[in-house]
Amino acid sequence: MSDKIGLFTGSFDPITLGHVDTIERASHLFDKLYVGIFYNRKKQGYFSLAERKRMVEGALAHLEGVELVTAENRLAVELARELGVQSFVRGLRNSEDLGYEANLTFFNGQLAPEIETIFLISRPAYQYISSSRIQELLAFKQDISAYVPKSVMRELERKV
Amino acid sequence: MSDKIGLFTGSFDPITLGHVDTIERASHLFDKLYVGIFYNRKKQGYFSLAERKRMVEGALAHLEGVELVTAENRLAVELARELGVQSFVRGLRNSEDLGYEANLTFFNGQLAPEIETIFLISRPAYQYISSSRIQELLAFKQDISAYVPKSVMRELERKV
Amino acid sequence: MSDKIGLFTGSFDPITLGHVDTIERASHLFDKLYVGIFYNRKKQGYFSLAERKRMVEGALAHLEGVELVTAENRLAVELARELGVQSFVRGLRNSEDLGYEANLTFFNGQLAPEIETIFLISRPAYQYISSSRIQELLAFKQDISAYVPKSVMRELERKV
Amino acid sequence: MSDKIGLFTGSFDPITLGHVDTIERASHLFDKLYVGIFYNRKKQGYFSLAERKRMVEGALAHLEGVELVTAENRLAVELARELGVQSFVRGLRNSEDLGYEANLTFFNGQLAPEIETIFLISRPAYQYISSSRIQELLAFKQDISAYVPKSVMRELERKV
Amino acid sequence: MSDKIGLFTGSFDPITLGHVDTIERASHLFDKLYVGIFYNRKKQGYFSLAERKRMVEGALAHLEGVELVTAENRLAVELARELGVQSFVRGLRNSEDLGYEANLTFFNGQLAPEIETIFLISRPAYQYISSSRIQELLAFKQDISAYVPKSVMRELERKV
Amino acid sequence: MSDKIGLFTGSFDPITLGHVDTIERASHLFDKLYVGIFYNRKKQGYFSLAERKRMVEGALAHLEGVELVTAENRLAVELARELGVQSFVRGLRNSEDLGYEANLTFFNGQLAPEIETIFLISRPAYQYISSSRIQELLAFKQDISAYVPKSVMRELERKV
Repeated sequence: MSDKIGLFTGSFDPITLGHVDTIERASHLFDKLYVGIFYNRKKQGYFSLAERKRMVEGALAHLEGVELVTAENRLAVELARELGVQSFVRGLRNSEDLGYEANLTFFNGQLAPEIETIFLISRPAYQYISSSRIQELLAFKQDISAYVPKSVMRELERKV
Repeated sequence: MSDKIGLFTGSFDPITLGHVDTIERASHLFDKLYVGIFYNRKKQGYFSLAERKRMVEGALAHLEGVELVTAENRLAVELARELGVQSFVRGLRNSEDLGYEANLTFFNGQLAPEIETIFLISRPAYQYISSSRIQELLAFKQDISAYVPKSVMRELERKV
Repeated sequence: MSDKIGLFTGSFDPITLGHVDTIERASHLFDKLYVGIFYNRKKQGYFSLAERKRMVEGALAHLEGVELVTAENRLAVELARELGVQSFVRGLRNSEDLGYEANLTFFNGQLAPEIETIFLISRPAYQYISSSRIQELLAFKQDISAYVPKSVMRELERKV
Repeated sequence: MSDKIGLFTGSFDPITLGHVDTIERASHLFDKLYVGIFYNRKKQGYFSLAERKRMVEGALAHLEGVELVTAENRLAVELARELGVQSFVRGLRNSEDLGYEANLTFFNGQLAPEIETIFLISRPAYQYISSSRIQELLAFKQDISAYVPKSVMRELERKV
Repeated sequence: MSDKIGLFTGSFDPITLGHVDTIERASHLFDKLYVGIFYNRKKQGYFSLAERKRMVEGALAHLEGVELVTAENRLAVELARELGVQSFVRGLRNSEDLGYEANLTFFNGQLAPEIETIFLISRPAYQYISSSRIQELLAFKQDISAYVPKSVMRELERKV
Repeated sequence: MSDKIGLFTGSFDPITLGHVDTIERASHLFDKLYVGIFYNRKKQGYFSLAERKRMVEGALAHLEGVELVTAENRLAVELARELGVQSFVRGLRNSEDLGYEANLTFFNGQLAPEIETIFLISRPAYQYISSSRIQELLAFKQDISAYVPKSVMRELERKV
């Protein structure tokens, strides 16, 4: 049968252990899983695109069949079609997530009916972790090492 | 790579168009998708196991790579292991579903950490349809043909 | 223009101040508002149908254009059509209510597309009051006079 | 009896098929239904007020008893009182909507206890459609013709 | 100042690690914390009252200032008043819990305005664990040792 | 036993009757309850810090054992440790609140495991009142006296 190809997207600003866990679980579901860093050059992120790429690459280096791509201000469905993707993969932490995700999934399905969206429910240990919370902890100079992969800690040290 | 094998479970009492849509979408994600009718001999269902089997088989006959199995009073993870399943597939209609599903997924993950659970969000047209609502409509002698596959209508005619 | 006719249904076992408030607010929206006691002879209620009728009639006697009807094990849409009803009226207390109500509204709309369902959000003072909670308070011999109309208290005295 | 007058408000930036469906359903409930475009001159909208008016008028031309009004930075209850309105009409898409709407309804009820707020649950086909999602699709140059009335498409062509 | 006295109630059929964690956290908030096993002689539980008592006592033996009490078919507020309790303590796992708990808290506050109800949010590790899920796992002869205190395991061994 | 010390934090821009009710209820649970006004000099509030302090002090003057503190751009856990606080106290109005609060509680527990967070559910009368809604009513020149303590009304008169 033809290969199963998935795409997990995010801004990864920065990548968290929650992202890594979802990507690792998703990598077993596909022959190939793309991880797409989506960014907008006009919106200042917390980390630069180059930093985010190094952090994501470092965090996923141990996973087979996972490949990093980047997309500037593009629709996810456009990138997915270019890459031959059959399924988007999304993490689901709670019912607030669900409202947003159901809406996004509906419109992605309208734009590209041939691409499916599948969800993985976050494990309890990761359900409260988000990039925005990490940014806030950094703003208050708190230790974030329990919530992010080592590649993020290395990038922070490089910055200092 | 090794085959991707999924399992979609339910009591299918009766199978609805919502089930059929989720199974059809899921069938594209796997090399093989098992559909498991779970039942409990002690709990009287609306339809007998034989009727449910005929209704499910009829509804899924057009799908490739889909195979029907039945399980009496068993844990889904046991059946999944026997069949070499890597992923449970579940439909998600709304946030109430999510609470129940997240709990079930947690315990299935505890019992069989090697088996993943993936979710597909129901399409708007199917989000209100459930087997229990179908049963209620039947109790009030209402037309259910808009909510179930033709195989269910045939079974109803056979009964009369 | 033709008259606006509404229908508010329930088991009213017993009628609460929350019901009365919703019915009073709804009565201003229609030229005529039917209040329908739905019951099932086979399911033993807390109060008998005769008691429920007296309690509802007593509670609504001060409202103009409101008329009591009863329905045994019938679909609401059937009664609504008989009565020339254009709109069901439902109270909405919280988001759990919404899931149930959205489902019911969908199927009523399927069965009778010409009949609309409108919702009134319960006032804060009434949002926690339900017939089942009243029954529970009665089982523990607690005072319920703050949650029900006087007609219910009179019926309770009559019973003793 | 006195006429039943309703008011459906929004920024309609732009009007969607979801708005049109709710307004059409609501128009049957009232002798007269006002549709109020609320805007704030200081906040740049996606469409100008003149464009929004043309789009709303075009979309509702087929409905009897519906009249368009506009309001700049006013409280809805003030406009409602001027127009002799008895009921606000609101669409309800999901439980997140409910939290916001319940709060708004409470304060409108505090400001104008004589005016009721009634809710219509969005049909499944329209539950994911919102003006902000339409704006986003336009920003990505996507086809929105499945989600908006023809009057919006005409206005877009005029712009180009 | 006068002593702070709390009450944590449940059916504890059986006590879980989630209960134990909430009770331990709550024990720091009070000078004395009562743990009340509520039961109904007419409703057959999974474990007998004697078994539940031994399991709870064993699980809480390491906590200071915690005392076990039992109550048959009583209102919690009655027991609380007898014991001089100022606050009920409740665990909160998710938003479904909240709807039920808010309702219960409202009525307890109506019955005993002088008694407060405080909530502790369950830790992620315990959020999916409930007595009813434990019962279900036992019915399927699964290992529950990761979800319950050792005193429950001992009681199970005694039973065999 | 050692004193029970609590901390209730907020921006109090302005303090509402909902805040006052929660603080009053919480004051009975502790030997000492700190009320912390958290602010950010860079973010323009609706009221100045001096105004907020006068409004909070006026509103809480009747409560024993309650003491006002302020904190500029600090983590709540830092202030709590300085003050010897054992428990944060938070009000809970609805399930949307719960998502935010559960996340905050998780991270406060990570930063300071020795400090507990307890929740009080808002009474129905206060569940819709928020500082941001008060600000909006003020922007529309509406009467807010039903939602705020007298100290806020005095401050508004002083401003005019």
